[in-house]
Parts: sequence; C-alpha cells; structure tokens
Amino acid sequence: MKKEDITIQGFRFAGISAGIKQQGKKDIALIFSETLATVAGVFTTNRIKAAPVRLDIKRIRSGKGQAIIINSGNANACTGDEGLRDASEMAECVARELNIGPEHVYVSSTGIIGRPLPMARIRKAIPSLVKRLSPSSIMDTATAIMTTDTFPKVSLRKLKLSRTTGTIVGIAKGAGMICPNMATMLCFILTDIAIRHDALDRAIRGAVRRSFNRLIIDNDMSTNDTVIIMANGRLGNKPLTKDSPFYRRFEEALSEVTYELARMIAIDGEGATKLINVIVKGARTESDAERVARAIAQSMLVKTAIYGEDPNWGRIMAAIGYSGVDVLEDRIDIYINGRKYVAGGRGSDNKKRRDRALAKREINITVDLGLGNRSASVLTCDLTEGYIRINSEYTS
Amino acid sequence: MKKEDITIQGFRFAGISAGIKQQGKKDIALIFSETLATVAGVFTTNRIKAAPVRLDIKRIRSGKGQAIIINSGNANACTGDEGLRDASEMAECVARELNIGPEHVYVSSTGIIGRPLPMARIRKAIPSLVKRLSPSSIMDTATAIMTTDTFPKVSLRKLKLSRTTGTIVGIAKGAGMICPNMATMLCFILTDIAIRHDALDRAIRGAVRRSFNRLIIDNDMSTNDTVIIMANGRLGNKPLTKDSPFYRRFEEALSEVTYELARMIAIDGEGATKLINVIVKGARTESDAERVARAIAQSMLVKTAIYGEDPNWGRIMAAIGYSGVDVLEDRIDIYINGRKYVAGGRGSDNKKRRDRALAKREINITVDLGLGNRSASVLTCDLTEGYIRINSEYTS
Repeated sequence: MKKEDITIQGFRFAGISAGIKQQGKKDIALIFSETLATVAGVFTTNRIKAAPVRLDIKRIRSGKGQAIIINSGNANACTGDEGLRDASEMAECVARELNIGPEHVYVSSTGIIGRPLPMARIRKAIPSLVKRLSPSSIMDTATAIMTTDTFPKVSLRKLKLSRTTGTIVGIAKGAGMICPNMATMLCFILTDIAIRHDALDRAIRGAVRRSFNRLIIDNDMSTNDTVIIMANGRLGNKPLTKDSPFYRRFEEALSEVTYELARMIAIDGEGATKLINVIVKGARTESDAERVARAIAQSMLVKTAIYGEDPNWGRIMAAIGYSGVDVLEDRIDIYINGRKYVAGGRGSDNKKRRDRALAKREINITVDLGLGNRSASVLTCDLTEGYIRINSEYTS
Repeated sequence: MKKEDITIQGFRFAGISAGIKQQGKKDIALIFSETLATVAGVFTTNRIKAAPVRLDIKRIRSGKGQAIIINSGNANACTGDEGLRDASEMAECVARELNIGPEHVYVSSTGIIGRPLPMARIRKAIPSLVKRLSPSSIMDTATAIMTTDTFPKVSLRKLKLSRTTGTIVGIAKGAGMICPNMATMLCFILTDIAIRHDALDRAIRGAVRRSFNRLIIDNDMSTNDTVIIMANGRLGNKPLTKDSPFYRRFEEALSEVTYELARMIAIDGEGATKLINVIVKGARTESDAERVARAIAQSMLVKTAIYGEDPNWGRIMAAIGYSGVDVLEDRIDIYINGRKYVAGGRGSDNKKRRDRALAKREINITVDLGLGNRSASVLTCDLTEGYIRINSEYTS
C-alpha cells in the first residue's frame, strides 16, 4: 500500500500551515478520533518538561482521549505559566471546534525552546485545521510535525484477530536530540482494535523500551518527547486484556510499528548517511549487553569512523572497555557487516584493503563478549559534517 | 621564559623520529632522571588497557623510577601477549643504553589501536634517542608525543620553599578521545622538589581530579591514558610530607600545571575553534554541580551551537534537565560570557540580535541552579566539521 492511501477507521487527520514556521511550511496538525478512545502514553524523563508535556501527563491519567493537536517550529518549553496557559488554550480551541471535552484533547509541540507560542496565528489556524480533517490526510499530519526531518515517517501493521483484521498506524518525527530515553521525538499511534487500558499501557511501554529507548542520534534528550497511543475500538472486537490469546500478537505488531519508526528516525538522523545497528551478544545479562551497545552507539569516534567507511575496530574496543561492564579483552569478537575484524580481542585481519561492505547504507556492528548468552541491540547513525552544519546554523 | 628555554635540574629529554609515523615526524621520546626518582601515576579506568599501561601499573607499585620511553603513532593496545613483550622490550632497550634497572623504566604509547609495534625500528632508534638526551630538549619530547595535536603542550610553575625555589614542569598530549576520566591523554610531570611518595601520590590524584578528569572533548575514553609524575629531589629540600607547611602550596602549583595543560588540550581539541568553560554554581552538592556541568559539556547540540556562535540556551536547559540532578526549572539562571540569557528558567532576552561576546575564542557558560552554594566547572571545546573530518579520515 502506498503511504498516501493509508486510512484507519474512525480516525481523521489534518496538517496545514499556521505561519509558525517560515515559507508557508506545514506546522500544525490534528488527529481526531470520531469516538472517545482509550489512550496511553510515555513522556520525556527530562526534569525540564515542556508545557504541553506537563498538560498531557495530567490528562492521560483518565486513560481517555479523542484528539491530539500538534505544532512544529516552537517547543513551548521553558515558557513558564504563559506556556501552560497557551497549551491549555490550544486544547480548548480544538475542543470548541470539534464539540468535544477539552480534557480529551492532548497537545504536543516541537521546535525551538524558550519562545512564547505565536498564539494569535494558532487560534486563527485551528478552525481551518478542523475543517480540513479527512480520513486520508495522514501524510499531511506526518509532514506538519516535521522539524529537521527530511521525510515524513509512517508505519502500518495489519493484525488478524479471529474473524476481523485490525490496523495499527504510527506517525513519528525525530531527527536531532534523540538519545537514551527518546528525545525531540514525537510519535502518535492509532489503532481500531479494542483493548483495555491496562493492557494498552503495558504494550506501549514495552514497545517504546525496545525501540525508541534503544535509539541514539546525538545523546541529547529533549524536553518534549511524547509517545501517545489511541485505541478507538471501532473494529468491534472483544476488548483485549493482558490474558487475551491475541494480546501477545498485538504487542508484537505494535513493537514492529515503533521499531520501524525508530529505524526511519535513525536513517533520517541529522546529517546521517548510514544507519548503524549495534548488536551485542554473549553478555552475562541483557542489561550488560545494552550498556555495551549504548557505549558503542554513543561513541563519536565510532560514528565518524563508520561515516569514513573505516573499519576502525580499536575505537569499538575502547568503547566496550569504558562501558562500565566487566568484560574480558581476550574473549571479544567483533564483526562489521558479517566480516570478522577482531577474534579473541586481537585484530584478525591487518590488511589495509578497503572493505566494500562499509560502503553500504546499513552497517551492522556485532560484538560477541563471550561471557554468556544474553544480547541487546541499539540503533544509531553515523556522525557527519551535515550534523554539525544543521546544528550550528539552527538559529535561536 | 620561552618554552624552548625550559630546563629542570637533573632531568634530560630527547625526541626523534623512529619511522613509526610517516614523513619523518618525531614519534619516539625519552625522559630521563639522572638519579632514581620518586614516582606516582594515574592510569585509564578503561577495562581494556594498552600493554604499556598494564606494565606501568605493575611497576609503579615500587614508587620509584628513572626513565619514561614514549612512542606515538601506535597505541600498542589490543595486541595480546606480543604487545606486553614489546612494551617490556622497549623498557629493556632503554635500560641497557642508560645502564639502569629495566624495572625503573616506564613505557607509554599512543596512536592507532590493534597493530603490532614496529619493533625493529624502535630497537634501532633507542640508542640514537639516548645519545640525543639533553637538559634543553623538552620541546623535542613534547613534539614527539603528539598525535593529532596541533601544538606541543608544556607548562611550568616555580614554587618557593623557605630558602630555595623548586620547579614543576608538565608535558602533555591530548586532542581526541578525551572524556570523563582522561583519554588518549598522556601527561608527564617532573619536579626537582623532594617529596615523600604518599604525599606525591595524593597530590597527583587531586590535581588530576580537578583538571584532566573535568575535561571533555568527545566523551570517548582511551585505552592508553597515563599521567606520571617523577620527583627527583635534586632541590635538596627536606622531603615534603602531607603535613609539611609547603605541601598545600605544592599541591596548588601542581594543580595549576595540570589545569593549564587541560586548558591547552581543550583549546587543541580536534577541530575545535573555541574553548568552553562550563561553570555550575548554586548546587546542593559539588557532585550535583559536576553532573550538570558534564551534561552540558557533553552535549553535541550545545557544542555545535557555540561553534555557530548561537546563544541557544534551550539546549543548555535541556542538558540540565537530563543530567539526572533534581533541579527546579524556575530557579535556573544562565549566563554566556557574562550576559544573562535565562532568569528563573525563562528567556530574559528574546531579541534576535547577534551576541558579539560569542565571537570570542573563549566561552564561559555559567549556570546558577539556585538550590545551594556548591559549584564545579568542566572544560570542553566546540564541535565542528573539523572534528568530523579528522576522525572520519584517520585511517585504520
């Protein structure tokens, strides 16, 4: 299916320009569920949280929701009480136009920190935004939430329940400030499958843990990270519980959606030319494996070496060594795209010939610690002059 | 005093080319104390330690030493038993030529990881190296230990004891892979002041903690970091102890030497155009202050913003928020080179005019958390296309 043709029953979308960004780019989006939906979410763990995040964290306690209004170009972070009032007003404007309760409207913002929202423009845009709502406008929404992203990010999975087939659709934006625990990463997931709130909450937390929380672009974590999932139950199935025979498959399909979006974010990392998948196996515990994988994925020296298509495994060894995990040097094997560079802690191939496998767009760094049978993987991207250019020119 | 004229009684230096690096660059150095000296040192905490570091850690238990042989161009790391034999042999060759005990010779290596040392060239170079020893060749040593450094790093302090004046000289190399706990950072400090071993050990650990361990270039930590101090006692003073009236002043002078070298390393960070000094005050504890300062100094987004001369304080706020310290957003003030950008967690100056203070080569980011009276500072540099270029082209 072409992404432009994606629809999901009971949901409508819009994305237009409100004049927050320059040059008439789309910068305001709306997701609307025709009926009240079950809602769960995961938010930034940054101590400094943007106003909309603080609003959403309160609202999501009800486990219910019907709309999400999102703007790009301004993060509404570090904006004090005024920022909180602005976030509430955005929700109220949407609620009034849609004739729903403002407590059922969630708000997300992404962009520059520390400037008041241009509320006059936003107020003016919301009625037009609501008028543009349509079941087939998902790409407008995906485009309007972008900041330095170079392409809109949408992922779809179909899930067969006994007699019917449900749909899970995810929309995300990423690019910079992506780190350990998400970052200026926004993700909205919609499903027509009926599911109980506690099961939905558990499924989304698991899916985020295995995808966005194992995605590293630049080690920075934003004040605005948000993942919200809405389940409107329009499929008419008996609501899934944690014990339903289909719950596991729902969890798997949801994880596939979040993982695919995480991959898209890594591919679209600011200035990135390569996707890097760091796989650590042979660890004593999964947490050890994850720490080693993170150290490698965060290493600027590893990321610049991959950019230069240079199999500089010494930098990988150094990162393993400072990960904090109790490793044994002479047990370590390292493979890059299947070719063994390190065997038992020593270089297994000292020829200086160029490895053509490193010219690929997708690089797998596999480390076997030789200490156990646990593994973990972390996604990242290479570090290039493009990253520096984007982030030194991004004006404040 | 011109650096070329620096001498210190009882020490001799040499630095020549052994052909490890290309183009005849100096790549092997020797520091020799005419008499057996008291020695203390601090080494990388990386689990994967280069062969010479493993050798030195054993030897330094004696607290004695007379020579340090250093090569650049090859780290002798991840080289297995062969690497250990090579490091030992380097010490033996030097000991033989100098007619001293090999157990009194320390070895340091820096450069590419995972290649065997070119021992034939090193064996051949050592006799010439010893012949070139001279009291006035300190700059040859400082030059021969450089890798991607753009200038040799030497620092000198004179310390007046009651009737005599002692000297402390430090030589360092840095550039890349500099992080929390030192990195491919080599530093050799020499003094003619007599000092007891336990006092010397304590003084060097304190000095390293307040300088190199608060220096961040790229968050990577190398397998080779080494700081060694040799005190030959040629000044003839009564050996200092921890309780001597002059011990505190020795500690201060030593800290000034290591701090000055740390500043030089930050200024010479790979591709760096600016030195950044992150000062965090108003913290509940010094450790809180240091965590916040480190988070800011490690942020690629902050470092690229400073490179772009963009006072993007939102990125500083985000880093404070994810530092893990329990901060209160509305208490935070942020100053950049003296100008207040954030007051009580909110932007205090929203005008978009360019801040000329950011065009300076040295940037002070001062954060007041407003929670207590403890402070800490961390040195770093900006992140530029130059860093990417150097590290993506550095061939393995």
